[in-house]
Amino acid sequence: MNTKNFIKTVPMEQVEVRDSFWNRYMEVVRTSMIPYQWKALHDEVEGATPSYCIHNFLVAAGLKEGKHGGCVFQDSDLAKWIEAASYSLIHHPDAALEKDLDDLIELIGKAQQPDGYLDTYYIITGLDKRFTDLQNNHELYCCGHMLEAAIAFYRATGKRSLLDIMLRFVDLIDRMFGPEEDKKHGYPGHEEIELALMKLYRITNDPKHLRLAKYFIDQRGQSPNYFEEEGKGRNFYWANSHFKYQYYQAGKPLREQTVAEGHAVRAMYLYTGAADVAKETADEGLYQVLRTLWKNVTRRQMYITGSVGASDYGEAFSYDYDLPNDTVYGETCAAIGLAFWAHRMLGIEPRGEYADVLEKVLYNGTISGMQLDGTKFFYVNPLEVVPEASEKAYVYSHVKPERQKWFGCACCPPNLARLIESLPEYAYGVREKTLFVHLYLGGRADLRPQGIPACLEVETQYPWKGNIRMTVRADQAEQWQLALRIPGWCGKYALRVNGEAVEAAVRDGYAVIDRVFRDGDIVKLELDMPVEKMQASPRVREDIGKIAVMRGPVVYCLEEADNGPQLARIRLTNAPFTVTYEPELLSGVAVIRTQGEYLEGDWGEDLYRKAADEKWIPKDLTLIPYYAWANRQKGEMRVWIQS
Amino acid sequence: MNTKNFIKTVPMEQVEVRDSFWNRYMEVVRTSMIPYQWKALHDEVEGATPSYCIHNFLVAAGLKEGKHGGCVFQDSDLAKWIEAASYSLIHHPDAALEKDLDDLIELIGKAQQPDGYLDTYYIITGLDKRFTDLQNNHELYCCGHMLEAAIAFYRATGKRSLLDIMLRFVDLIDRMFGPEEDKKHGYPGHEEIELALMKLYRITNDPKHLRLAKYFIDQRGQSPNYFEEEGKGRNFYWANSHFKYQYYQAGKPLREQTVAEGHAVRAMYLYTGAADVAKETADEGLYQVLRTLWKNVTRRQMYITGSVGASDYGEAFSYDYDLPNDTVYGETCAAIGLAFWAHRMLGIEPRGEYADVLEKVLYNGTISGMQLDGTKFFYVNPLEVVPEASEKAYVYSHVKPERQKWFGCACCPPNLARLIESLPEYAYGVREKTLFVHLYLGGRADLRPQGIPACLEVETQYPWKGNIRMTVRADQAEQWQLALRIPGWCGKYALRVNGEAVEAAVRDGYAVIDRVFRDGDIVKLELDMPVEKMQASPRVREDIGKIAVMRGPVVYCLEEADNGPQLARIRLTNAPFTVTYEPELLSGVAVIRTQGEYLEGDWGEDLYRKAADEKWIPKDLTLIPYYAWANRQKGEMRVWIQS
Repeated sequence: MNTKNFIKTVPMEQVEVRDSFWNRYMEVVRTSMIPYQWKALHDEVEGATPSYCIHNFLVAAGLKEGKHGGCVFQDSDLAKWIEAASYSLIHHPDAALEKDLDDLIELIGKAQQPDGYLDTYYIITGLDKRFTDLQNNHELYCCGHMLEAAIAFYRATGKRSLLDIMLRFVDLIDRMFGPEEDKKHGYPGHEEIELALMKLYRITNDPKHLRLAKYFIDQRGQSPNYFEEEGKGRNFYWANSHFKYQYYQAGKPLREQTVAEGHAVRAMYLYTGAADVAKETADEGLYQVLRTLWKNVTRRQMYITGSVGASDYGEAFSYDYDLPNDTVYGETCAAIGLAFWAHRMLGIEPRGEYADVLEKVLYNGTISGMQLDGTKFFYVNPLEVVPEASEKAYVYSHVKPERQKWFGCACCPPNLARLIESLPEYAYGVREKTLFVHLYLGGRADLRPQGIPACLEVETQYPWKGNIRMTVRADQAEQWQLALRIPGWCGKYALRVNGEAVEAAVRDGYAVIDRVFRDGDIVKLELDMPVEKMQASPRVREDIGKIAVMRGPVVYCLEEADNGPQLARIRLTNAPFTVTYEPELLSGVAVIRTQGEYLEGDWGEDLYRKAADEKWIPKDLTLIPYYAWANRQKGEMRVWIQS
Repeated sequence: MNTKNFIKTVPMEQVEVRDSFWNRYMEVVRTSMIPYQWKALHDEVEGATPSYCIHNFLVAAGLKEGKHGGCVFQDSDLAKWIEAASYSLIHHPDAALEKDLDDLIELIGKAQQPDGYLDTYYIITGLDKRFTDLQNNHELYCCGHMLEAAIAFYRATGKRSLLDIMLRFVDLIDRMFGPEEDKKHGYPGHEEIELALMKLYRITNDPKHLRLAKYFIDQRGQSPNYFEEEGKGRNFYWANSHFKYQYYQAGKPLREQTVAEGHAVRAMYLYTGAADVAKETADEGLYQVLRTLWKNVTRRQMYITGSVGASDYGEAFSYDYDLPNDTVYGETCAAIGLAFWAHRMLGIEPRGEYADVLEKVLYNGTISGMQLDGTKFFYVNPLEVVPEASEKAYVYSHVKPERQKWFGCACCPPNLARLIESLPEYAYGVREKTLFVHLYLGGRADLRPQGIPACLEVETQYPWKGNIRMTVRADQAEQWQLALRIPGWCGKYALRVNGEAVEAAVRDGYAVIDRVFRDGDIVKLELDMPVEKMQASPRVREDIGKIAVMRGPVVYCLEEADNGPQLARIRLTNAPFTVTYEPELLSGVAVIRTQGEYLEGDWGEDLYRKAADEKWIPKDLTLIPYYAWANRQKGEMRVWIQS
């Protein structure tokens, strides 16, 4: 494995975001979602399904009487909230919030068992059953999330309180799982702990953390199948479905897998953890397995919005090129998982395709999962919605035309919160003396801890404009390389340093400027950002004859609010597009307008007729960014438009 | 109600079929399906799911030890077999088969309880529970089917054996159900007995049979809801689904219903029975309710093949204009039910639209449910099939690319058998001195018992040719009217009597020749039968931009066997069609050929691209009749083709 390609992430601590697009989201998360979810975790939101999160910890700690409430993996909601809240503290110290966190962690500590065990479900319902149903009961998954929370809190505050708690739990897990004969040879039914252990390893450098993560990944799907053995006599739904153990990506060892199958969030988390292990162990073979899976996912099973997991049944991958727009699942969490995975792949090799997918899913299929004000959420992210269909026809009934307040199984909202609050970490990477800019975020990055003797200040109105202005701040002049991502969607760009055009070789999607940078140097990148009509491969039968509209990384859609009902009757023509930035609309979006056509014809009571020339009448069309749909009134929406 | 419009059916006893299309089907049913199903009912088909039908009757009769096997409505399979076998005897006396029927009926008689009760499920599992779960347990449904069987056997043989058995059961039901205070105010969870009681009434003329049928129809959906009352404390799946009691067409009284909802077969049977009651009681109000439902079904919820019930979930109607081609259900039995209903509506008023739908569903959505040789069957009749999708994606998994041998719940195969064997009954009707020809079947009809002083001999190669030659056979010359259906699909036709063109007024889809007919008069009807491109209303979003090809009543499709895979990449052009009758292909079909185009382009590993001009290359296309698909190799099929 070419370890020389490895890129070190520039951590979020060194990246301040002052970005017109993302700051609004980060502030919504910090000032609205985090406080709202805090209330939700305390069951203080009126009319919402109770979370039971805090309740469960109180009961587990012996401070309250009661039963376990919510899902078996309810602890993870709390963990994701701690993670998001901790990230928010990094650039926004908040004594009250930190105090809440301290108190909460104290409570978590009280719930922890003497041997380190920590999962409220089994603490409350019976510790004798712990680790006996890995397939379904999410203990290792919850541990993973709580580990991520512990690391985030430690990073934000330097406090080891939750980290120490979790180290004790990890020690217990390490004593219980592994290749040794006296240990269980199992692995989680829902992956997550693998990537969390790798985060931990990067802090502790303790080889047992790496070893355990690697064990979980390598042991998965080995014969005899652990879940089958564990579950003898039990009737497991998914293992009995057509997915069989591939629902859990455990039908065979990961290294033998070539196609993404089963539950999409599980798959994304597994691949993310595996990428961490591949990098840390310089395992070229494992990386190539992930390359194959990456190609399968992004070139055959990904919606143009970056959503993955086409099948409602099992919240799962379907099969190559099966990408229905109306019966889609496209879970928000799966899109978030794809962002994690893309970022890890980028850490192994700086390929533009990884960053392109990262950007695509960040600007489309993840944030489509939340209302602009952060109060309502989608689990499912469809590309075509007819409210009447969702209400009346079961096959579309999982597709909601309006976001929901909170979910009984609320995995997606806190997952969005932690993603958005950690966004700065996705922007930059360093390899020796090369700074890779993956995402164009306004703000300032201090690169000195990574060995680049400078800070970079970025000004941009991305994604609405393609102009990026970067100012180098440096104490001394020194030679280093600035590798700027030229997005896959960009056909033409101009690059200037201090006003002078520069020719920069483009390698794998990055234009590299190699020079002595001085304080005050100004690098300007102008990415041409026309409106583009996109087609899907003709293997995608749902999209034949249709066009999706993109501008830069942003996928657009037609919404009933702008275009009236029956969007299926609209087609695009060759009329030009106009782009207008409208600061008041949908928290500020670039709107695309064009003249299309509408299929006229009142057929009265006729259902079928001999074909006649269809009458298409001109119709003014307005397209808005896909992520911003369903923020006005309930109505139809459509990404793929007839042409 | 205008009872003068009523048409009397010319019963199958008077109609001999010598039709190149239907005789083959009737012979397949008689010589293959009936013997095969006999074996199946006896659990003698190797590798097939046992039916348990005979077993259940043996156990119920005390002649065998054992448990009840199969579905709760398993008796109905036997009933439908008796009905089909009886019809076959009408024109093909068969002593051995009749003996089998006699023996079987003797067995049924032995299973009957002293008070007349007859349902093997409750006889075996506990008579104390009978009539306590009308909502789910199909007793009245099974009784209806056995009644139809009894009437068919009586018609075929003149033997009252099964009829008397069933009269006793009906008497019991009549004692138990009705408006009187001491009776149960229930009705069947699955309609069927209503139409069967009306058949019985036409034989017995006993007002209680009419009264009971009418009671079941009128009581249905009244408040308080019987199923809700009956089911207190029970957890009923469908009543808890989004259908609620409308799954059973029992959410409100039939007379308040305007949209077809819920389980499609149930709905068809209810409407059929209600049409019988409306006619028999000259109930204009009820007929208008059925007109409204008819319009809803045929103008908003019917596939071009005549299939109804778009939703797999609940085997049910979806909502207006929701007619997906790939996730469709379109149960064979629902199409059969639509044929029943259409025929009943035609008996109230001779409207061409009723006969058009009858013909459409007979030549398409019903017989598509069986393999040409009658050995394999579809439950689901899709309009678009991709085998890989059916195998790998749950949302299409109910859509089978190959017909199945037999079903655990085998309602469709014996239903097809009885429909096909009774087909002659659908062709003719008489009103005073007018003979209505609804269907063009080769053969001979003796119309004298209905008061038309003649026989009619028909020669035709329908549906492959539009030429119909009818010869009048009469002892004496007399004036009467011959009303020939001019199908809705026919734009041009010529009518000659004894070689001379005649002008006949067309009323509601029938061209009426009013003259003195003499022995040997020859009436020739030439229906122009070009290949037609059909469009669906733009309200059907799945079919926008697509064309279906029809010729005469027959809907065509593209199949992979002729056109290769990826049928979604094919589009029709304006190239002419050629029609060739191929006697060796698919038991003899008219094949349509044309030059279409195929969307070229090997996108390699690309999934999305900036739109470029698409390259469509010429491709020779072969279309076969839809009903005959899936008779060669497993492969794709598509009715609605891009244009």
